[in-house]
Amino acid sequence: MVRIAIDAMGGDNAPKEIVQGVVLAAKEMPTVEFQLYGDEAKVNACLEESLPNIRVIHCSEKINSDDEPVKAIRSKKDASMVVAAKAVKEGEADALFSCGNTGALLTAGLLVVGRIKGIDRPGLMPVLPVLGKDNRQFIMMDVGANAECKPKNVHQFGILGSYYSKYVLGYENPTVGLLNNGAEEGKGNELAKEVYGLLKEDDSLNFIGNVEARDILTGAADVVVTDGFTGNAVLKTIEGTALAMMELLKEGIKGQGIQGKLGALLLKNTFYGLKNTLDYSQFGGAVLFGLKGAVVKSHGSSKADSVYHAMKQIDTIVSSGVINDLVAHFEQTAE
Amino acid sequence: MVRIAIDAMGGDNAPKEIVQGVVLAAKEMPTVEFQLYGDEAKVNACLEESLPNIRVIHCSEKINSDDEPVKAIRSKKDASMVVAAKAVKEGEADALFSCGNTGALLTAGLLVVGRIKGIDRPGLMPVLPVLGKDNRQFIMMDVGANAECKPKNVHQFGILGSYYSKYVLGYENPTVGLLNNGAEEGKGNELAKEVYGLLKEDDSLNFIGNVEARDILTGAADVVVTDGFTGNAVLKTIEGTALAMMELLKEGIKGQGIQGKLGALLLKNTFYGLKNTLDYSQFGGAVLFGLKGAVVKSHGSSKADSVYHAMKQIDTIVSSGVINDLVAHFEQTAE
Repeated sequence: MVRIAIDAMGGDNAPKEIVQGVVLAAKEMPTVEFQLYGDEAKVNACLEESLPNIRVIHCSEKINSDDEPVKAIRSKKDASMVVAAKAVKEGEADALFSCGNTGALLTAGLLVVGRIKGIDRPGLMPVLPVLGKDNRQFIMMDVGANAECKPKNVHQFGILGSYYSKYVLGYENPTVGLLNNGAEEGKGNELAKEVYGLLKEDDSLNFIGNVEARDILTGAADVVVTDGFTGNAVLKTIEGTALAMMELLKEGIKGQGIQGKLGALLLKNTFYGLKNTLDYSQFGGAVLFGLKGAVVKSHGSSKADSVYHAMKQIDTIVSSGVINDLVAHFEQTAE
Repeated sequence: MVRIAIDAMGGDNAPKEIVQGVVLAAKEMPTVEFQLYGDEAKVNACLEESLPNIRVIHCSEKINSDDEPVKAIRSKKDASMVVAAKAVKEGEADALFSCGNTGALLTAGLLVVGRIKGIDRPGLMPVLPVLGKDNRQFIMMDVGANAECKPKNVHQFGILGSYYSKYVLGYENPTVGLLNNGAEEGKGNELAKEVYGLLKEDDSLNFIGNVEARDILTGAADVVVTDGFTGNAVLKTIEGTALAMMELLKEGIKGQGIQGKLGALLLKNTFYGLKNTLDYSQFGGAVLFGLKGAVVKSHGSSKADSVYHAMKQIDTIVSSGVINDLVAHFEQTAE
């Protein structure tokens, strides 16, 4: 039985949208146990009906979005995020979910849930759509857990990502590409050059060489690896560019008056499809991967729908057994 | 009199589109001298009319797109790019333009044209549109000349970019933002943290702190500085995301059949405006900035129109006197 520990107090729309998303998921997944950590009165007020697979665990504190991560995790012992993380550490839950303070969640993941032995640094990994290929996704790692990376870290992101791609997305022999500023071997900064060598030597990976940022959205590789500084910049650029373009379209349509309105009406399906394709919250949250439990972070502004998708994602992750097999992989490697 | 040395043999559409773009510019700018370096017979075959301000200088060789940059610049003494660069070095031209091999142009800039004294590394700097603000542009530096950067280099990009923004784009007191993975001071990798300190201490700059990649396209800063590895990834992500979205729109419209066609027809102006806004070649090429002459690179696939815009940009750069004033700035700083 899959058990998910949910920080019901994290994010801009907590606890309401969190609880609503969990209720949606709980109805669809009766064999999954959903543990809601948070202010009992507030959480219960959002729980419109009682479901047998939802439990509420009262916590007197919560982590705020502007809290200093390490300090908050250490001092707020009864914060919903901390107590939920402890449930994972103590084997009472298989996964941790939060829409709250990213830095604090990373800290809770590292300090409370704990790393898989042999993994130096877990990475933050979103699941993104391959544009133009329905139902195909790719993952990128790291997008911000580690601003400063060693070659070994990025190599491990390749292993972690491959496992995720295989176990959770179901891709056979997923391709691994190193994000770089040119396709040829020998390109890049010192870090990229060293990582290239490590990935090339690792026979367990289907390493296809360098990939350029221009091509990742159209499916250059199933697993794109990079340091957390560059990955963060790339992810935010994708978001910023897509948003700005949608805004330009909207403004342009408005500027065309009635003709614009009519055109937009006729192209409603196209615009809806475009918006839908770009909304990657439908694939769940970003996984903080490399820890002893599944830890998933959704956007601070997440609504019930995103939370629901994250619950489905977590169920798939836990059911796949990927984390146990990763533990075994790194135990073998260490021997 | 502004004199521009043009590598007529560089790029996918050379010499035809290069020559045609130059002819367009030459007619509009009779006081600018255009020096076309390349295979005389081929260049003349594209020159449909003779103009008093266009000169053709024969070169027996050319740099290919797959040539190894340093080797090519050193061994192909009579390549159009090399001879054009020499013209700048020897004071026979004020600026160098090419659509050819980027690495070779960087090498020619460094080895032939030469750095401004006091500048460690020139940076590659495109001029990009601020989306949603007509006629406003921002610049980003470095987007790929230096995959590995020292803090001092990125600091100097801030100075170089500010000069360009002021002199060439005409912005008073341009804002400088450091591309980083969070807005607060203290964010980022080691490089970003050190650069932050240098930019903050430099009173000659209007440093506004960190900017996130999500916000740069909508005008977070007039001058965005970062290392060449990250900048390259961000620029290529912008291009890739914009292209992929346009492709999705096109496919969506096609999929809607006649209704789609009609909708697209009604929204023709909007789509045209969107495409036009995103086409940043209208602002000219990317400037390799920090050299003793203006060196401008346009995309390998550039057509006459992009070349024409680059000629106008170069005229503005040279006429502004920005390079002389940069030389003076760094001489003062060195004292």
